[in-house]
Amino acid sequence: MTKHVRRLALPLSALLLSIPIRADGPLPVDTRAAVGALAARGASPTRAVEWVRRLTDEVGARPSGSPGDRAAIAWGQALLRELGFVRVRAEEVPVSVWERGVETAEVVAPFRQPLVVTALGGSVGTPAEGIAASVVRMESLEALEEAVKADPDVVRGRIVFFARRTMKAGQGPGYGANVPMRTTGAAKAGPHGAVAVLVRSVGTSRSRFAHTGSTRYEAGGPRIPAAAVSNADADLLERLLARGPVTVRLVLGCRPLPDGTSANVLGEVRGRERPDEVVVLGAHLDSWDLGTGAVDDGAGCAIAIEAARLIAEAPRRPRRTIRVVLFANEESGGAGGRAYAERHAAELPKHAAAFEADSGTGTPLGFSWNAAGTLEPALAAVAELLRPLGAEGLRKGGYGGVDVAPMAPAGVPLFGLRQDSSTYFDVHHTADDTFDKIEPASLDRSAAAMAAMAYALADLPRIHARPAEPATEGR
Amino acid sequence: MTKHVRRLALPLSALLLSIPIRADGPLPVDTRAAVGALAARGASPTRAVEWVRRLTDEVGARPSGSPGDRAAIAWGQALLRELGFVRVRAEEVPVSVWERGVETAEVVAPFRQPLVVTALGGSVGTPAEGIAASVVRMESLEALEEAVKADPDVVRGRIVFFARRTMKAGQGPGYGANVPMRTTGAAKAGPHGAVAVLVRSVGTSRSRFAHTGSTRYEAGGPRIPAAAVSNADADLLERLLARGPVTVRLVLGCRPLPDGTSANVLGEVRGRERPDEVVVLGAHLDSWDLGTGAVDDGAGCAIAIEAARLIAEAPRRPRRTIRVVLFANEESGGAGGRAYAERHAAELPKHAAAFEADSGTGTPLGFSWNAAGTLEPALAAVAELLRPLGAEGLRKGGYGGVDVAPMAPAGVPLFGLRQDSSTYFDVHHTADDTFDKIEPASLDRSAAAMAAMAYALADLPRIHARPAEPATEGR
Repeated sequence: MTKHVRRLALPLSALLLSIPIRADGPLPVDTRAAVGALAARGASPTRAVEWVRRLTDEVGARPSGSPGDRAAIAWGQALLRELGFVRVRAEEVPVSVWERGVETAEVVAPFRQPLVVTALGGSVGTPAEGIAASVVRMESLEALEEAVKADPDVVRGRIVFFARRTMKAGQGPGYGANVPMRTTGAAKAGPHGAVAVLVRSVGTSRSRFAHTGSTRYEAGGPRIPAAAVSNADADLLERLLARGPVTVRLVLGCRPLPDGTSANVLGEVRGRERPDEVVVLGAHLDSWDLGTGAVDDGAGCAIAIEAARLIAEAPRRPRRTIRVVLFANEESGGAGGRAYAERHAAELPKHAAAFEADSGTGTPLGFSWNAAGTLEPALAAVAELLRPLGAEGLRKGGYGGVDVAPMAPAGVPLFGLRQDSSTYFDVHHTADDTFDKIEPASLDRSAAAMAAMAYALADLPRIHARPAEPATEGR
Repeated sequence: MTKHVRRLALPLSALLLSIPIRADGPLPVDTRAAVGALAARGASPTRAVEWVRRLTDEVGARPSGSPGDRAAIAWGQALLRELGFVRVRAEEVPVSVWERGVETAEVVAPFRQPLVVTALGGSVGTPAEGIAASVVRMESLEALEEAVKADPDVVRGRIVFFARRTMKAGQGPGYGANVPMRTTGAAKAGPHGAVAVLVRSVGTSRSRFAHTGSTRYEAGGPRIPAAAVSNADADLLERLLARGPVTVRLVLGCRPLPDGTSANVLGEVRGRERPDEVVVLGAHLDSWDLGTGAVDDGAGCAIAIEAARLIAEAPRRPRRTIRVVLFANEESGGAGGRAYAERHAAELPKHAAAFEADSGTGTPLGFSWNAAGTLEPALAAVAELLRPLGAEGLRKGGYGGVDVAPMAPAGVPLFGLRQDSSTYFDVHHTADDTFDKIEPASLDRSAAAMAAMAYALADLPRIHARPAEPATEGR
């Protein structure tokens, strides 16, 4: 063997020198090798599933500002230290705090039927005895607007039921189209005299779970209670409304609490050459209170943490620092992302990229990216290496994710991990968002894909920042 | 055309007379024609879906002895009268009554985690402050028996968690294998000093619903609270127990109420020749309280009612009377089926068949049957006519169903409608058993299959009763 190799030594080295120049033009040869090795890690088990299991078992639900949130912040720092990350810290974030209470609803006429409902995050409660009123169905916000033009009193004294169904991708109005019903339905209906709002769950499952999510009031506007109703019960309401008048009693014990604090949790794998330059691997640590936040966004936290750990294990560190950021308050205000961008404003020009993983547990498909066009050849070269994972799909544009989007005005290159999310909206924001829904092999591929792409950006000769302006497209 | 037909008249009628004798030997030719026409009704929409929609929308949950149960009894009689059935009546059935109350549980150590639980029907409650105790895992009733042999104090003062998972058909221990954990777990654990029982939901869904179902205590034995825990939370308990000791607090407000009354609802399509001879089309009208009893057993009620209605619409009535029986109390004691067999004991020798539909909303596969072997050729002939519906599968044996089984000792031929039940145990006994789960086309096929088979049995020259002895095999 040795003799044979020696005889080939000269021609072989010539070959090795020539191939990278042709095949890896946009990526330095050593970067390319490291990226390929990281991508290959996605084919076998990583520790990603362990992180989401530990987070959901040891902490569980962690709504912003709650005891669970505080436990998660401690948990996150302990884990990042356990994994050998450096500069592990919690950066405080002021947050509004809200508490769920009793929540029941029932049709009281024409027939008595309990409804599965859940208060929308931020909603005011009802009086203890509840609000009983006739229900008026509106297909959408636009339908409400039309209806009050025709009859200004159409919703006065009534409960407005926003009925539009959320369809799986490609089958009709999806999550993005219907979220405004949830976030602004109460704000839009209140000024016309509505006494409460019921929103068909902005979720794609027909299981009888109500999907929560945040709602907002206009400053100075009326604040009426708002709840989501399960798809099964929304169907019932529609059938009953098709027969005639329907009266519903809604009881919500939810309430805002005094403002509190949460924190972004940070930890780093220091870069070998330019440790002051940073690639952020982000996900959000907070969750809704109904489930254990496994899919939303325990999965993302696990992907980001494991991606950083895989990079730390690489034979050679990338030039720049990998910074894991587990963001606070994504679900109920986005204060964590804003706080990070503010606190690190001076440092943002040295951010080579900010990634976010907040699309659940599905298999990785690739990345959205928003950076200078000069980055495209390098990204395409990385994407080729992600093809074995099925994660080669690049989509130009987008804002990366709610938590990294506040870095857009500074021109930071933003990356969103794209995943198969065909079942994501079945469980997210419900009591059913629990660890058993996690797909370990998809987390492995996602962590490897993020590690590979992040390594490349942390190792390229220069930062490809965009001109500083807001990114406006959706992911 | 006319001329042509006339020329063929004699040979054609000879042909018509000869074919039935060869092809339809076990079925009289006119019976065969009627059966075939009924089977063909399953290929297009029937009104079956309307009956289950109306029952679930207008009544909803109807646990035995509850106001919902009373509403269902009134609803059933009104519908059978509306459809022109005769001798419509409610036959009173004494039942035990039980009420669900608050039901919460949480892991309090090593971490605080709420658990989704639901009291088992018939369970006693806990003190208002609940029962907090360490949890001991038992895979099954058999494992408990072994464990207390080895250590008589192994469950003393503890909450016993019966952990065995219910698998889909053919994948492992199924519903039938695990029901005893639910019905007798508390009775078996109580005498060894257990303070409560948690049973992994005897259901096949991984959605976070707890599956209720009845539990029974031994006369004179200790009565400890018993609840089902959702599969997702059972998984959590298993993971936490694998780490070390686990303490759970269980709060159940359920309680038995004074005995009450329910009723079997009957209505008939009178036979043309022997109206005193009867074919029963049965299903159970009661449901658990958590959902609206759409799949269990609104679907069966709809199938039985629609099958009778299709027969009533046939050009010629069958010889015998078709009697729809909507049974009381199937879920929590089976008093309705027993009461029917007792009240109609003198009439049972004139029962040509008793059918039950209690397997949900799936497509029909055929029938189990338990009658004299002399019936087999006729059944096989009917089965051939059911082939276009996919309902040709005959399985000898079984007891028809919980409600018709009490007629077994009298030798009444018993028939169970066999259906695809691959998703049945996902939703049954949960809050998720709602109308949106109904598959209308499957109900159509099921109603037509039952109508066709029932017509045949109501029209055959004689009754093929079994020797009077209990049927013991499963369906």
